[in-house]
Amino acid sequence: MQKKEGVMEKIVSLAKRRGFIYPGSEIYGGLAGTYDYGPLGTLLKNNIRDSWINRFVRDKENVYLIDTPILLHPKVWEASGHTSEFIDPLVDDLVTKKRYRADHILEENGVDAEHLTLAEMDAKIKELKLKSPDGNALSDVRRFNMMLETKMGAVEETSVHTYLRPEEAQNIFINFKNILDSFSPKLPFGIAQFGKAFRNEITPRDFTYRLREFEILEFEYFIHPKEKWEALFDAFLEEQTQWLSSIGVDTSKLTPFEHPDTARAHYSKKTVDLYFEYPFGSKELTGLAHRGDYDLARHQEFSGQNLGILEEESKERILPHVLEPTVSIDRAILALLLSVYREVPDKEGTRVYLAFPPHMAPYKACVSPLLKNKPELVAKAREVFLAFKQGLGWVAWDDNGNIGKRYRRQDEIGTPFCITIDFDTLGETPELKDTVTVRDRDTGEQERLTIAQAIERVRQASRAS
Amino acid sequence: MQKKEGVMEKIVSLAKRRGFIYPGSEIYGGLAGTYDYGPLGTLLKNNIRDSWINRFVRDKENVYLIDTPILLHPKVWEASGHTSEFIDPLVDDLVTKKRYRADHILEENGVDAEHLTLAEMDAKIKELKLKSPDGNALSDVRRFNMMLETKMGAVEETSVHTYLRPEEAQNIFINFKNILDSFSPKLPFGIAQFGKAFRNEITPRDFTYRLREFEILEFEYFIHPKEKWEALFDAFLEEQTQWLSSIGVDTSKLTPFEHPDTARAHYSKKTVDLYFEYPFGSKELTGLAHRGDYDLARHQEFSGQNLGILEEESKERILPHVLEPTVSIDRAILALLLSVYREVPDKEGTRVYLAFPPHMAPYKACVSPLLKNKPELVAKAREVFLAFKQGLGWVAWDDNGNIGKRYRRQDEIGTPFCITIDFDTLGETPELKDTVTVRDRDTGEQERLTIAQAIERVRQASRAS
Repeated sequence: MQKKEGVMEKIVSLAKRRGFIYPGSEIYGGLAGTYDYGPLGTLLKNNIRDSWINRFVRDKENVYLIDTPILLHPKVWEASGHTSEFIDPLVDDLVTKKRYRADHILEENGVDAEHLTLAEMDAKIKELKLKSPDGNALSDVRRFNMMLETKMGAVEETSVHTYLRPEEAQNIFINFKNILDSFSPKLPFGIAQFGKAFRNEITPRDFTYRLREFEILEFEYFIHPKEKWEALFDAFLEEQTQWLSSIGVDTSKLTPFEHPDTARAHYSKKTVDLYFEYPFGSKELTGLAHRGDYDLARHQEFSGQNLGILEEESKERILPHVLEPTVSIDRAILALLLSVYREVPDKEGTRVYLAFPPHMAPYKACVSPLLKNKPELVAKAREVFLAFKQGLGWVAWDDNGNIGKRYRRQDEIGTPFCITIDFDTLGETPELKDTVTVRDRDTGEQERLTIAQAIERVRQASRAS
Repeated sequence: MQKKEGVMEKIVSLAKRRGFIYPGSEIYGGLAGTYDYGPLGTLLKNNIRDSWINRFVRDKENVYLIDTPILLHPKVWEASGHTSEFIDPLVDDLVTKKRYRADHILEENGVDAEHLTLAEMDAKIKELKLKSPDGNALSDVRRFNMMLETKMGAVEETSVHTYLRPEEAQNIFINFKNILDSFSPKLPFGIAQFGKAFRNEITPRDFTYRLREFEILEFEYFIHPKEKWEALFDAFLEEQTQWLSSIGVDTSKLTPFEHPDTARAHYSKKTVDLYFEYPFGSKELTGLAHRGDYDLARHQEFSGQNLGILEEESKERILPHVLEPTVSIDRAILALLLSVYREVPDKEGTRVYLAFPPHMAPYKACVSPLLKNKPELVAKAREVFLAFKQGLGWVAWDDNGNIGKRYRRQDEIGTPFCITIDFDTLGETPELKDTVTVRDRDTGEQERLTIAQAIERVRQASRAS
């Protein structure tokens, strides 16, 4: 039923109309590369974040979660190499002065630019005599640092010029010693972090795929440099896939993409992204990289602090190696929406619903009185609603319009169960007193259960797998 | 027992040593006004954030939670008045060129500067012939905008100069129309938000009290302009107090401070902060302001969008008024640590513990085998540990050192219960088989309970009040 063309537009429209995701600063014409999560998007995002923390931190015991600043000492970015290396190749249209990513210009002209150096891109553009989208000549390819800069402190001479972090890994590396000092963990162990990061993307695009402000969930897993890491690497890749499956991402749309030697960061032994089949192409959703001891070694050098971990047997300090699983929460939300969007024909035309796994749905259930203008029904429904909230937390109340419209609304936001209170609940049919109808979002089927059974049914369904 | 002097130093030291809070970018000598939350601080922060969201959003039904960017269109800050008004009064030491807050210089010389204009501060400094801390003459008082600036986009001519948000209220106001469009709420209703904000404080100080990067929890509550707001205002103030009490803040240290007419923002009808008695003085912890329709009116004017809400009876669009309860999560953590820090004499000298309400504690319980080198004890303890995790989520495992040391460690991080598995658990005394000792953090008393009873005891104690 579901048409591939246009699914992106449908999701963007549903997300805005129903309060999942709005364009950022929209009343001022928008701010490219930023989005606002509305009430339903925020609950969804919180569920994804919590699910990730539970699986990769709480259930692991040897992973430590930290929550650290967006603003770091500028030396961090020198040590990490971002000041010199975190660059995009740019070209200018010599007439309009508009700027473009050189690799995008090449790709739009059928050249695979992913592994080309700046000089190679420049040579290729000249060789092919490529023009700008407006048909004008292009400048030489230039370097552009993608970090957003800011300045802290009031006095020009002593103020600190720094950057909004473009990733979170460095926050973890500069806290490595703190964790050693406070917890004396033994290898292997991990340090995890969630939060915002910023990149000055030239062409933010594809809804929440390529943003200037986004949120990452990741951990660095520190292992002994002599440890056999291949099996662990494969296990993390498998666990990323399992986690994506558990939140409802369609894993049949996932493909592992191993970065070839020429395109990998020089310090990385292996990097495998999980690509998701978005409507705009198969692109990154999660990353998994072996970073060696590059980061710790650099921070040790630039800070002058010993970042080694004491090996009990040899009494020597060693620098661990690192495996790094990451996921962009914004991309996970997009992949999830694309995975759960459903259109099925029904007597009114088409029924649209979001088939979230119940533990991911913004609301676990919606409670309604059959009729809004019968005070005794409304009173009973309020009582049931409060019992559901007590037991399940996020539960919607809806008494607007007729019941068909309410189902339609709840389907569109992915509420797994609609609970209706009618005259039978009040005792009109004595054997049905204190029972309610429970309607299933995916099948549309209804069942009559006692209030307690209904709560338990929703609770069981909402358990994370 | 608890000495007032030095309590701040003790908490800063404990927070760092045990992994609650570290100075930001510490291995590079620190970055003033930033802190890293370590693993225990992060769990504490998450608990506080969740508690606030549950109380002020989930339990309210008519409050919508959003999660929106730090980077906004620069017009937002013009409309809100931040570009012109969000300033600090500064003076320079004419010799060293060091910069100071003029109001701080005056306060350190016994002048109450809180309600003085820039010109009045300038006059007062000259009248009193005040010098800099280094004894040099001071410049005229000048304006300094406290927002942190950044630039988005690659092309100088078309790039957007904007600011890292210095507050979150504006994110809410610019989403007001989105919420109207998606949810058609009726007045009164609220929009809530949590997240980072940034201020270029000249003198960040007092640990996590005055930061350059911090996190706020707040909501704007929209009411009919004709609604009697005084009772609602008082109710919110009472609810802020109750919430602080529920997370464990010592409410005997709270004092409401009503801003006098001269010091209040011109659009505010009333502003009352809750001050907390920190060791460095009684200062703001929460805020509650009546903002009138100032913000919506300004955004309506600057954006050209109609932000009115349709009144059903009169069929007219009206701009609601706003009550705004806010809390800084960093200050709440500091006030909480100060409230729960305990020192009691014991046979080894002094026992230090953090008397968190159990639902706020990073770990709900700690499970230990009595001895580490008895495999059958360790195996049973692991089994109990997993049962506790299954039932309670965040549970610590500790098998290091003797049991006294473990208690001491768990006390210092505020774990409410220590569960020990001994030979009786294994069946050495048959009637005690499958029972464990449950030690209470605050009293040090121990009880023998079955494993199931012990889990239930911790679960009951960990319920939010």
